[in-house]
Amino acid sequence: MLLTKLETVRKRSEALIQPLEPDDLSLQGMADASPPKWHLAHTTWFFETFLLQPHLEGHQSCDPRWSYQFNSYYEAVGKRYPRPERGLLSRPGIAAILDWRHSVDEGLRRLLEKPSLELIQLVELGLQHEQQHQELLLMDLLDGFSRQPLEPCYDTKADLTTSVEKRRWLSCAEGLVKIGHGGKGFHFDNESPRHRVWLDCFELQSDLVTNGDYEQFIADGGYQRPELWMSEGWSCCQRNGWQAPRYWRGACEEFTLAGRRPREQRSPVRHVSWFEADAFARWRDARLPSEAEWEHARCIHNKDLRHAHGALWQWTSTPYRPYPGFTTAPGAIGEYNGKFMSSQFVLRGSCWMTPTGHERDTYRNFFPPASRWMGSGIRLAR
Amino acid sequence: MLLTKLETVRKRSEALIQPLEPDDLSLQGMADASPPKWHLAHTTWFFETFLLQPHLEGHQSCDPRWSYQFNSYYEAVGKRYPRPERGLLSRPGIAAILDWRHSVDEGLRRLLEKPSLELIQLVELGLQHEQQHQELLLMDLLDGFSRQPLEPCYDTKADLTTSVEKRRWLSCAEGLVKIGHGGKGFHFDNESPRHRVWLDCFELQSDLVTNGDYEQFIADGGYQRPELWMSEGWSCCQRNGWQAPRYWRGACEEFTLAGRRPREQRSPVRHVSWFEADAFARWRDARLPSEAEWEHARCIHNKDLRHAHGALWQWTSTPYRPYPGFTTAPGAIGEYNGKFMSSQFVLRGSCWMTPTGHERDTYRNFFPPASRWMGSGIRLAR
Amino acid sequence: MLLTKLETVRKRSEALIQPLEPDDLSLQGMADASPPKWHLAHTTWFFETFLLQPHLEGHQSCDPRWSYQFNSYYEAVGKRYPRPERGLLSRPGIAAILDWRHSVDEGLRRLLEKPSLELIQLVELGLQHEQQHQELLLMDLLDGFSRQPLEPCYDTKADLTTSVEKRRWLSCAEGLVKIGHGGKGFHFDNESPRHRVWLDCFELQSDLVTNGDYEQFIADGGYQRPELWMSEGWSCCQRNGWQAPRYWRGACEEFTLAGRRPREQRSPVRHVSWFEADAFARWRDARLPSEAEWEHARCIHNKDLRHAHGALWQWTSTPYRPYPGFTTAPGAIGEYNGKFMSSQFVLRGSCWMTPTGHERDTYRNFFPPASRWMGSGIRLAR
Amino acid sequence: MLLTKLETVRKRSEALIQPLEPDDLSLQGMADASPPKWHLAHTTWFFETFLLQPHLEGHQSCDPRWSYQFNSYYEAVGKRYPRPERGLLSRPGIAAILDWRHSVDEGLRRLLEKPSLELIQLVELGLQHEQQHQELLLMDLLDGFSRQPLEPCYDTKADLTTSVEKRRWLSCAEGLVKIGHGGKGFHFDNESPRHRVWLDCFELQSDLVTNGDYEQFIADGGYQRPELWMSEGWSCCQRNGWQAPRYWRGACEEFTLAGRRPREQRSPVRHVSWFEADAFARWRDARLPSEAEWEHARCIHNKDLRHAHGALWQWTSTPYRPYPGFTTAPGAIGEYNGKFMSSQFVLRGSCWMTPTGHERDTYRNFFPPASRWMGSGIRLAR
Repeated sequence: MLLTKLETVRKRSEALIQPLEPDDLSLQGMADASPPKWHLAHTTWFFETFLLQPHLEGHQSCDPRWSYQFNSYYEAVGKRYPRPERGLLSRPGIAAILDWRHSVDEGLRRLLEKPSLELIQLVELGLQHEQQHQELLLMDLLDGFSRQPLEPCYDTKADLTTSVEKRRWLSCAEGLVKIGHGGKGFHFDNESPRHRVWLDCFELQSDLVTNGDYEQFIADGGYQRPELWMSEGWSCCQRNGWQAPRYWRGACEEFTLAGRRPREQRSPVRHVSWFEADAFARWRDARLPSEAEWEHARCIHNKDLRHAHGALWQWTSTPYRPYPGFTTAPGAIGEYNGKFMSSQFVLRGSCWMTPTGHERDTYRNFFPPASRWMGSGIRLAR
Repeated sequence: MLLTKLETVRKRSEALIQPLEPDDLSLQGMADASPPKWHLAHTTWFFETFLLQPHLEGHQSCDPRWSYQFNSYYEAVGKRYPRPERGLLSRPGIAAILDWRHSVDEGLRRLLEKPSLELIQLVELGLQHEQQHQELLLMDLLDGFSRQPLEPCYDTKADLTTSVEKRRWLSCAEGLVKIGHGGKGFHFDNESPRHRVWLDCFELQSDLVTNGDYEQFIADGGYQRPELWMSEGWSCCQRNGWQAPRYWRGACEEFTLAGRRPREQRSPVRHVSWFEADAFARWRDARLPSEAEWEHARCIHNKDLRHAHGALWQWTSTPYRPYPGFTTAPGAIGEYNGKFMSSQFVLRGSCWMTPTGHERDTYRNFFPPASRWMGSGIRLAR
Repeated sequence: MLLTKLETVRKRSEALIQPLEPDDLSLQGMADASPPKWHLAHTTWFFETFLLQPHLEGHQSCDPRWSYQFNSYYEAVGKRYPRPERGLLSRPGIAAILDWRHSVDEGLRRLLEKPSLELIQLVELGLQHEQQHQELLLMDLLDGFSRQPLEPCYDTKADLTTSVEKRRWLSCAEGLVKIGHGGKGFHFDNESPRHRVWLDCFELQSDLVTNGDYEQFIADGGYQRPELWMSEGWSCCQRNGWQAPRYWRGACEEFTLAGRRPREQRSPVRHVSWFEADAFARWRDARLPSEAEWEHARCIHNKDLRHAHGALWQWTSTPYRPYPGFTTAPGAIGEYNGKFMSSQFVLRGSCWMTPTGHERDTYRNFFPPASRWMGSGIRLAR
Repeated sequence: MLLTKLETVRKRSEALIQPLEPDDLSLQGMADASPPKWHLAHTTWFFETFLLQPHLEGHQSCDPRWSYQFNSYYEAVGKRYPRPERGLLSRPGIAAILDWRHSVDEGLRRLLEKPSLELIQLVELGLQHEQQHQELLLMDLLDGFSRQPLEPCYDTKADLTTSVEKRRWLSCAEGLVKIGHGGKGFHFDNESPRHRVWLDCFELQSDLVTNGDYEQFIADGGYQRPELWMSEGWSCCQRNGWQAPRYWRGACEEFTLAGRRPREQRSPVRHVSWFEADAFARWRDARLPSEAEWEHARCIHNKDLRHAHGALWQWTSTPYRPYPGFTTAPGAIGEYNGKFMSSQFVLRGSCWMTPTGHERDTYRNFFPPASRWMGSGIRLAR
């Protein structure tokens, strides 16, 4: 079954570049993003470095310069090519990278003939990692395409199309609750340990904030009223000239993976930073939920919490920090999540670019408060 | 009694510049710091703007350009002179600023002849504000002096001199505790509401980390081992070439308000960033306490928590965010604390530069994780 | 004949990308460079904008967004896509650009059926312009390749291979000489008017400075001795950590269009900035020639001035400024050269990447003194 | 006589700070400028370093940290305190600097009891150097004051007050002329050797461009028309938002050393960059004169060239480069002028801030083309 999943996930990465022109494969729109080709190579590097090199007898390592190029941030593995310049890596060409993918896949198949539990867990991590990069690939591509006058369309079917229904407030009583992953299935280290948190009573909206709502915020001077903003967010806004969500275009359009399209009033507003989400909530006399509130409400209200998954990640009010008792794995794998626990905020749920099956109610996504190229949206609490 | 306190606090500000040469009064060592003269003017602007202008009949407002120059960050009051250029404000001269101080003091005395409760509270806020700036003045001066080849001495008695005793771990049982200010005395808005927090059992060290401890961290490669650091902290370290706390000089000295002095092994280590405090704790197989842990342990163990106040602010693991139910005052005063609640960490306690009587167990000081020019130290938890 | 030249020149541009992988076509190593694909598009835009649009009846203009993307710096034509981000233009793809080239070529052929003198001159300018971009394409590619760990080879035959012979000093007597282009053939506006210049007697070296010479400069502390440098050059050196010419690698190799290769002692040193050339000359108790000296010596000594053309551009001591009486053409074409006459130095001759037939003794190439990605070398004067 | 001059010049420097408040003495408005106190110290350092230390027996050198602080750019003397941070040097205080000045003056008097020719020349250089810094002190102060909301007045008599009369074109015939200093009196190394230059016939305006002229340039879209500008100048303009000369304020005022004052239509326009002067000239179908033209016209037309001195430095079209045969003195003194001969333009004449007696027809002042805080103006040629 793991072999099947391996094949499915690995093939999907390659399917993602099918709609692209060769010229798009090295596109890196900004320092925070990576080219499609790099994502394909890096996920392969991950398997080669953490699976094949230490565990597959007779494995021939790749050129160390490839390892240098395709290591993302693992200090324990060695130095890395500077992230903001990944778009300059015209070599290896895509053909060589696809060959590498296939030979690593072959190695993995050999390795999984009689796998130990440790290996199974590592492969599972590698696949979850690759799924994360599938979402990153799409986010990064949207960013890269958005910078071009020709406004390329990635795929007419790749856009989010959903509507928000009439919203109501879902109540939760105060109490000592448990959050975090406590079961046996796969989860990232940052989702555990499961632990107790005290929650005062609160309410969460049953659905997301819409484009229509957000237009009212703008019309009411949302981007001109410093009193609605964190000081840091206000500076960020001024410095970057923000007047609307990242991909809004003109009065009634937005840029998407399906090219420029009409902006639907009833669709959830997306590609907003934490600063914008926070300011919007304040304007509405509401606030963002804490991640514990989100997780607990999801547990209590389940499907009544619409668009919990599959539409947009939802900003929480919670800075990304370790859960009480959090520990990291030894070695490079321990760098996966733990070292990013400062100056970021947690997002909960998942988005339309998240691969199916990758979402989890305990999932902790995280981004700096000024980021807005990912599939982020707003759910209000009070 | 308020009049007495007014006089005492206001005079102390002026006393702080007595040891200075006239040339020091405009010194601004970096964008985050302000010149001594500016602190004297800004605290006066605060009283004039929030007390005299709205409440003192017949009050003649100051030159609007002064208001422009000496407003710190209150958007609701109007535009401000750029903060990084405060050192360029050679005018008004110190004599004019002292005259202004005295005329504002006179206005306050008139205003306080029959004060309403609102006025009493505003004056109290103004005095607490001025005390904060007294500490800032000293911090900023230390920074400005530290940049000069001549290593000026502010005052031979102005340095922290204390030693850490044998430390032990103080235990606290798990439980639902209350933190935050709930009483009647003065407190900043960010200290309330008092609210419940669940704490797992934990231990806190009875005293602070010393210079000797920190030297071991350095000797053990503390600044060369990325696995000890947050990723953001490691970058910060590399970019700025950090190899030791901010004011260490050579193998056994440090720069202080009393000039360059021998570094005592048993004195608490100071002027470290949150990133360094966090890395040090990780190296020690410990962690920083949360602010709730700090406040609760202080409540339980009281004097056994040595140097809780008066030595160094103590970094906590808690990002600076509002307490549940937090609200800000309407108008400009609401900008006092609430708009800074992103990308900063809470420090607890107080330091040797904090004016006597200004400290409180519920006090929430906050700085970005890379800051290290304030009187910050480390207390470990586990 | 013009049609033949048109075909030859236009085809050569396309031939230049034959050795590339598709992934290389969007490679932009730095803000000053452009991707190969962009050069192919821009040279086509030039013909379309200045020839077909105003002169070919019934010509269908290209998408205005293409014009926006592929205008380099002609303010009179309209706004332009930001130069440092040309590498982000993954669209149009190379196939669309080649189609555009061919349709513009077809338009040019139609236009040249019965051409006016003005059209002939414009086409000639367009071809000279395209030849300049052929050289730029190679320079920019060398830069882009040089930034990659895999050190790609463009073409094993694309490197400069020549040796410097025994050098001697060629003398020129003092006198009033004429320089600049005065004849009928094609020349850029900046080469005229031909005008008188007084020259004191001087000597010019018969050949270029070699790698071997330059190694001695380095060994003698050339990069550590500020007294050899212009102050601006010394800062530039320190800021960028220059220790050798741009593409030297290790003790005895250099990076070239043919990949990493051994560095020949007797080959001319290349890819040096004006600052380095100037410092080297000072170290040798010599100086760089003025452009008038270069041109006059070339006239007097002709072939004795070895490597005047076809090896490396030769830095002169002359800032790039207009000749007395210089005028620009009206309209956008007037922006070709005239607006760049500040903060640059003139280089004379031509280099191995310069297309055959493009060189001229009166040619004035120009670059800022810190640039060193072009084919620049050193010839000494005294 | 040298002793008298010494006393006069040295006293004038101190007289220049008389109108200042103590708070002004450390004012550094930008990285290119220096605080008044620093100028007083640096000129003293110059005498101490180049006169007293090597030549006065028994001289006690100053604290090496003072030397570190007050060395401007002499690499041969050692490392220097970073220029952009001179405003942070609150110590030594002004009293200590004035004491130092007087003790160095005393040393100079002792040294000049029986001076060698070399010493006399060095003292003369030191005095000329100090005069340069007197002008710099005023320029820098104007910059520093201009940044303050209170718009301080340095001295009501310190402003330029002169009017331009009816202008005419002064003609000069073509010919081989000599320029540069050839006589015996003091001159800087960069003014020699005197050498021949060929000049085509040209005309120079008899007086400077006025505020009124410049207003017409602005009204005619001078700052909106890229075709009038060097490309580098246009970028500079856009980046900095230039819309008028540096110190123009509102529709009809300008900021001066005498505070904000009405702008006289017939006064010469001042505080323009080379880019603006060059664009203005192009708008007028004229050009800037070369420095050889300026010097030759001054020689031929003498007093008919009005405001050659004492009003404003006049931008020339000539990049600052060495005269043919230029050599520098050995050692640190050789760094005085020679190392700045790139990326700057020559200005000729002198300005109202130039100390009387410091001006010379062969004087070569130089600044980068974007600078405009000095006393620069425009004289047209054609």
